[in-house]
Amino acid sequence: MTNANQLATLVLGGDRRALARAITLVESTRTDHRDQARALVDAVLESTGGAMRLGISGPPGVGKSTFIEAFGIRLTEQGHRVAVLAVDPTSTRSGGSILGDKTRMERLSNQPNAFVRPSPSGRELGGVARRSREAVLLCEAAGFDVVLVETVGVGQSEVAVAGLTDLFVLLASPTGGDDLQGIKRGIMELADLVIVTKADGALEATARHACSDIRNALHLLRPPHPELSPEVMLVSSTAGTGIAEAWDRLKGTHSALADAGALDRLRAEQARQWMWSELQDGLLDLLRADRRVAEHLPELEAEVAAGMVSPATAAHRLLATLT
Amino acid sequence: MTNANQLATLVLGGDRRALARAITLVESTRTDHRDQARALVDAVLESTGGAMRLGISGPPGVGKSTFIEAFGIRLTEQGHRVAVLAVDPTSTRSGGSILGDKTRMERLSNQPNAFVRPSPSGRELGGVARRSREAVLLCEAAGFDVVLVETVGVGQSEVAVAGLTDLFVLLASPTGGDDLQGIKRGIMELADLVIVTKADGALEATARHACSDIRNALHLLRPPHPELSPEVMLVSSTAGTGIAEAWDRLKGTHSALADAGALDRLRAEQARQWMWSELQDGLLDLLRADRRVAEHLPELEAEVAAGMVSPATAAHRLLATLT
Repeated sequence: MTNANQLATLVLGGDRRALARAITLVESTRTDHRDQARALVDAVLESTGGAMRLGISGPPGVGKSTFIEAFGIRLTEQGHRVAVLAVDPTSTRSGGSILGDKTRMERLSNQPNAFVRPSPSGRELGGVARRSREAVLLCEAAGFDVVLVETVGVGQSEVAVAGLTDLFVLLASPTGGDDLQGIKRGIMELADLVIVTKADGALEATARHACSDIRNALHLLRPPHPELSPEVMLVSSTAGTGIAEAWDRLKGTHSALADAGALDRLRAEQARQWMWSELQDGLLDLLRADRRVAEHLPELEAEVAAGMVSPATAAHRLLATLT
Repeated sequence: MTNANQLATLVLGGDRRALARAITLVESTRTDHRDQARALVDAVLESTGGAMRLGISGPPGVGKSTFIEAFGIRLTEQGHRVAVLAVDPTSTRSGGSILGDKTRMERLSNQPNAFVRPSPSGRELGGVARRSREAVLLCEAAGFDVVLVETVGVGQSEVAVAGLTDLFVLLASPTGGDDLQGIKRGIMELADLVIVTKADGALEATARHACSDIRNALHLLRPPHPELSPEVMLVSSTAGTGIAEAWDRLKGTHSALADAGALDRLRAEQARQWMWSELQDGLLDLLRADRRVAEHLPELEAEVAAGMVSPATAAHRLLATLT
């Protein structure tokens, strides 16, 4: 536990290598590491909550890294301290990681006021979300005032990221139509801001068209915050146009939520849900770790799938072995 | 337990009053009733699975009861035995029940081959879904070959209903535009079939327009079954037009899924998920029932919401009291 307290002191001092080690610690699933991670987060908890927490998503190929780099560098130039975390559920499925390349966002990584974290190599989404929440807290403790949590557009991960950020930004490709299919799976309604990327050169007219298509689609959805209707904006990460406007918009939205007390309510509710999800995970861990349960689980699950045992009876039998 | 076996025999014999009592039993949250309910479902389990399980939803005012009545009567005339169940999460929120009026679907209720169950007075959605699943099994055991599970369009309930049915039908109002807002919250992408209601008289042209609007919107969504793209159809429940076509479409889709083995896979996966959700509920019940946990829970939850204790630490402390 001394270890965790020492690490906490270094993180609070803004030591980036300590921050990297701290995040590695909260990413670990080893029981002794989990104990240390909890002690670490508890030790810095008072110094958290100070950042604007932004979720960023979009389908592969939309130019997410390029946007985050341009956006992040702009913010650091204005004196902000910017941390970038990645939630990458693809590592679960393919074994490989889309976001894990070391060289990504090289320019942003080299900024003294920026911290770019490669994606975790986590196994399951719930766990990834849990660790990302704690990583956000650690970045705040280290003094970063803007934390970007990035994910690829594959469905459930956006919901997880929206559950741990204040505002959710969705990047959309200028080539509209076909591409909309990649995002429109209930993800669109998480968005506080949609940014159409690559709005420059030959693609500019197409991007404007996509912008109005998406604006129309948004009218059919319930906004994430009832007080604020989501906006659609054009950005060119390479030309640098639209970046300042996007930041102004996000800043304005964030302040409005904070002033209305909605931000505190959102974060309180997120924390409460996070506790219950930790409880559920913990209870299922206890269940799975039980030797008597492990003896019966595979057989019972197969019988349930085959319709030979009712789900309620199977659950009852497994729970009965616990008590 | 003798009681449950006797009831099972009556249900299997097609006794409608016994079926009503059996459903009341599975709706009960009393521990001794839950034990009997499990015994009952186990006793009939072999005779379940024979129905086409259809979820039906749509925003208030769309004409759901009128459609289900016209649809159900048509099916009974063709010799089908039709059961209608309602999942009504609004009873949770308002204390009252939209679907609970005794007089609804009077004509269908009076058909010898139909069974219309008023909505349960359940408290929370998970529980409602659990009981509805068991009610579906009981209706199948009683010989009903079409089970309609109806819900109002308020978000989460559709997801629950889609998780316990084979096909999901969404009713949409002919007045399009404004009304689309009422359904387009990720619900649209659950739909295997969208039916535009009231397509008669002065509204017929408007209904056609809504039909093509919705068809365009569906192109942006991922279909629930990758093999089958969802269809949009026009129906007039009062004139009786489109009802036969809707049934033919559903029958065709259902057979196609069955032939491809997709129906078995879907139901096996639903049963597995149902078991895990029973396990989660059961574990949380055990947790909440624990006296030591109950002592600390409210205070810890408030501290988590206030950011004074981290969610992981709160969960850890609560779980530690268990072991």
